[in-house]
Amino acid sequence: MSGTEAGPRLTRRRLLAMGGGGALGIAFAGREALSAPPAGEAAVPFHGRRQAGILTPAPGRLAFAAFDLTAEGSANLEALLRDWTAAAERLMAGKVVQAPAGTAPADPGEAVGLAPAHLTVTIGLGPGAFARGTGRAGLRPTPLQPLPVFQGDRIDAARSGGDLCVQACADDAQVAFHAIHALAHVGRGGVNLRWLQTGFTRSHSGKGPHPTPRNLQGFRDGTANIAATEASALRRHVWVGNEGPRWLRGGTYLVARRIRIHMERWDATPLALQEGVIGRKKDTGAPLTGVRERDLPDFAAKNPESFLPVIPMSAHVRQSHPSNNRGVRILRRGYSFADGADPGTGDLDAGLFFIAFMRDPGRQFAALQARLAASDALNDFIQHRASAVFAVPPGISPGGVLGGGLFA
Amino acid sequence: MSGTEAGPRLTRRRLLAMGGGGALGIAFAGREALSAPPAGEAAVPFHGRRQAGILTPAPGRLAFAAFDLTAEGSANLEALLRDWTAAAERLMAGKVVQAPAGTAPADPGEAVGLAPAHLTVTIGLGPGAFARGTGRAGLRPTPLQPLPVFQGDRIDAARSGGDLCVQACADDAQVAFHAIHALAHVGRGGVNLRWLQTGFTRSHSGKGPHPTPRNLQGFRDGTANIAATEASALRRHVWVGNEGPRWLRGGTYLVARRIRIHMERWDATPLALQEGVIGRKKDTGAPLTGVRERDLPDFAAKNPESFLPVIPMSAHVRQSHPSNNRGVRILRRGYSFADGADPGTGDLDAGLFFIAFMRDPGRQFAALQARLAASDALNDFIQHRASAVFAVPPGISPGGVLGGGLFA
Repeated sequence: MSGTEAGPRLTRRRLLAMGGGGALGIAFAGREALSAPPAGEAAVPFHGRRQAGILTPAPGRLAFAAFDLTAEGSANLEALLRDWTAAAERLMAGKVVQAPAGTAPADPGEAVGLAPAHLTVTIGLGPGAFARGTGRAGLRPTPLQPLPVFQGDRIDAARSGGDLCVQACADDAQVAFHAIHALAHVGRGGVNLRWLQTGFTRSHSGKGPHPTPRNLQGFRDGTANIAATEASALRRHVWVGNEGPRWLRGGTYLVARRIRIHMERWDATPLALQEGVIGRKKDTGAPLTGVRERDLPDFAAKNPESFLPVIPMSAHVRQSHPSNNRGVRILRRGYSFADGADPGTGDLDAGLFFIAFMRDPGRQFAALQARLAASDALNDFIQHRASAVFAVPPGISPGGVLGGGLFA
Repeated sequence: MSGTEAGPRLTRRRLLAMGGGGALGIAFAGREALSAPPAGEAAVPFHGRRQAGILTPAPGRLAFAAFDLTAEGSANLEALLRDWTAAAERLMAGKVVQAPAGTAPADPGEAVGLAPAHLTVTIGLGPGAFARGTGRAGLRPTPLQPLPVFQGDRIDAARSGGDLCVQACADDAQVAFHAIHALAHVGRGGVNLRWLQTGFTRSHSGKGPHPTPRNLQGFRDGTANIAATEASALRRHVWVGNEGPRWLRGGTYLVARRIRIHMERWDATPLALQEGVIGRKKDTGAPLTGVRERDLPDFAAKNPESFLPVIPMSAHVRQSHPSNNRGVRILRRGYSFADGADPGTGDLDAGLFFIAFMRDPGRQFAALQARLAASDALNDFIQHRASAVFAVPPGISPGGVLGGGLFA
């Protein structure tokens, strides 16, 4: 993965226009200058204090994969992370990946000519990366363990867990998928793909204010999320501090949950009931006690006639609110998914692929979810079908390796 | 579906800003003017000689669904087509759908505030829509029958066939999915969703020339496709003429095939072999006998040393070329898919969702595919996993109903 590294300003397109070079020449001889440059070549910086894809604004498309280490890969996690780090840097810059000498093209090729499209590649380590026998068993941080099964869960093991994860977000689905495809290719022999989930959220132009996206229930989702500008909340709720092992400090944990929405039941539910379940108005996103989306919910307010709470006791906004959960907050990055239909019933296999970053999955997500699983009115309309947790190392400087602190 | 129809210039966003009206007011009272207008409000015209989504340039995202008529729906196909026509027109204009009086919101809501995003909704009828007992059995056009099983096929019945299809293409995956979701909602009771396939192709800015997209094998795909400007080729190969029943004249047939790519095997194949299998160069898309993408392949050219054909006998470009298939051409509209990984092996469940429009599926697609299934070198790397065929009625004028000619 080194020696033929092209300069940082060489995009795939420019390399092609130049006629290729080094290892790239094998795959793409670049006999013609490609036509008009792709729009929006914006690339997200790869290096930094945090990995990209956590605070970075979420672009419209997600490809998220979990991988399992093979027996050989288990012994060579360090080499794999080094190769993936180099590949991730190239991908985010819109370049083709390079790979150790081989007869096949180093890069699968479907993103040649495409802009970086704000691609971010975020890499995490699951509990299995610290399995006994790899010599790393003692390095597993205590909070990195599979989440408990909560009331109502119906977890599909084949879509859950994993020794490593790669989150690829981009404006372009082809660019996001290519990142997973290329890392699977680079890692062949060391890792096998375990599962892959694609997702989408509303597209936006990148200009002007971005309204909170709507989920597939038609409600705005993410109104009360932690903002990238809330430095003290991020320190308190997201970044691992001195309580964590040295290699993970400044990093975070990623919890992923595949949440199926019972779309047919939800769609058949009257609007007032939908709004009561969520505790917000469908059109504006305002709490039932407010007028504007960002108005704070008034959980004490009562209907003057019925004397019932305006925001029902089981409403999602009440059950999940920090004020009712010892102040717990998490940084969410949700994408919708639509994976087909159930044979026979024709029910949509669609919902929310929930991703959240936090400092301690047990004290934050698990505590919150235990409450929601017991009391949230939304449970009549959703079901958690897959679950995974990963430790996400901090960002790196040029020359560093993601997760490299594990081997220091 | 009538009576409360809003003016054609009322987009979802404007309706919200106005405070809603009519049936819409039930779902979205529009208490606030939404913030900045979404970018690129470009809407594709709904009315015209052809249905949209056939000649319309393919935007980046696909949601394609097949539906089966319920017993009740079978008796009311005409009413269903009337409701879907009205809904499709509203969707393509970026409006929420309306529905017969009910307690639940008429529109699921996830596209509220989003631009039309070049959405096209294309509706077709499968063989089952003409089943015995519905009174329409005699109206089934002879070419509308399930395709034969070809050599090497491994067809999944649950992802194949269907009494009706809806192809939704848009710049935004959320808008494309919403169209399917909304039509499923509008059609509830009359149809059940049978299968849903999402897909993607390269995004482009809408400005400047559009290079031919690359498929997940990394090759340009669609170089020799029929162009929307080739009027005489379209007449000859795509539009149903006087040979068809009156209601279908000016329409076409749609063939859909879910083609899985054995990605791991392909990615491990040396570049020269990949290029020999396709018969084109990977970087430029030029035939192996040419320099530029649109150079015509020279099937007679021989390597001066080996005396072997430069374009191998089994190369895809040779096997599929019109000159080797009695002049058969079809109008393709392919999207890539990435639906996850096979549990156990970790192989990507990814490939090409092949859509093609043609005048006669038997004489065109089936004849071509019979040859390819027997002789195409690509067969070592792909497998057809699902199959469907639909008759696509012509476009309509305002007041018309898609497929309405069936009931005239």
